Amino acid sequence: MPAFERHVFVCHNVRPADAPRPSCTSDGKSDLHARLQQLSREAGLGEKVRINKSGCLDQCEHGPTVVVYPDGVWYGGVRPEDAEEIVAQHPLAGRPVERLRLAEECINTKSCPHRSRD
Amino acid sequence: MPAFERHVFVCHNVRPADAPRPSCTSDGKSDLHARLQQLSREAGLGEKVRINKSGCLDQCEHGPTVVVYPDGVWYGGVRPEDAEEIVAQHPLAGRPVERLRLAEECINTKSCPHRSRD
Repeated sequence: MPAFERHVFVCHNVRPADAPRPSCTSDGKSDLHARLQQLSREAGLGEKVRINKSGCLDQCEHGPTVVVYPDGVWYGGVRPEDAEEIVAQHPLAGRPVERLRLAEECINTKSCPHRSRD
Repeated sequence: MPAFERHVFVCHNVRPADAPRPSCTSDGKSDLHARLQQLSREAGLGEKVRINKSGCLDQCEHGPTVVVYPDGVWYGGVRPEDAEEIVAQHPLAGRPVERLRLAEECINTKSCPHRSRD
């Protein structure tokens, strides 16, 4: 993969308030995305790392959700104030932030115990 | 990376008609995304492959753009009628569709000869 060393996708999905599954944003905007983008640029990673908006990443019970490729590292419950630690450790130093990682048994599976039975 | 064997991001970005860079969709909707999703489900890949919407992937001069992870394979100028070939070859058989791949010298670089000097 040339140029982008890491491609970070931040879920921007929003659902109606009465939907059975929760949303990663309340209004389709994400302070988390903005903060990750700002810090990434400030760290000089602008051309090596892309902080991308994404549609629903399907880990809704663990949102706000972020996935980093090509590593395939998933983060859940990420707050804007976590952005500094993520940028410093992951795209910059190649070390995922372990405390924010989704549990293996919760990723991409309908048998996740936290998942709504929708 | 558990469960998702491939994660396919389809650009849904839309810009005003007079913007200096082009858009991957005219109205934020993508028949390409819908077709990839439908074919992926029909091929029984529903839980192994996620066909995701994304914001701008920054390869605007080559849109509609698709990127497949964890491979990091980029496709450009993708039409809905290309979806069948992509699903059959890439997520199902692990073979990228070479005729749709972006040229290495065009991916993620401001020096791409096709890129607007914005």
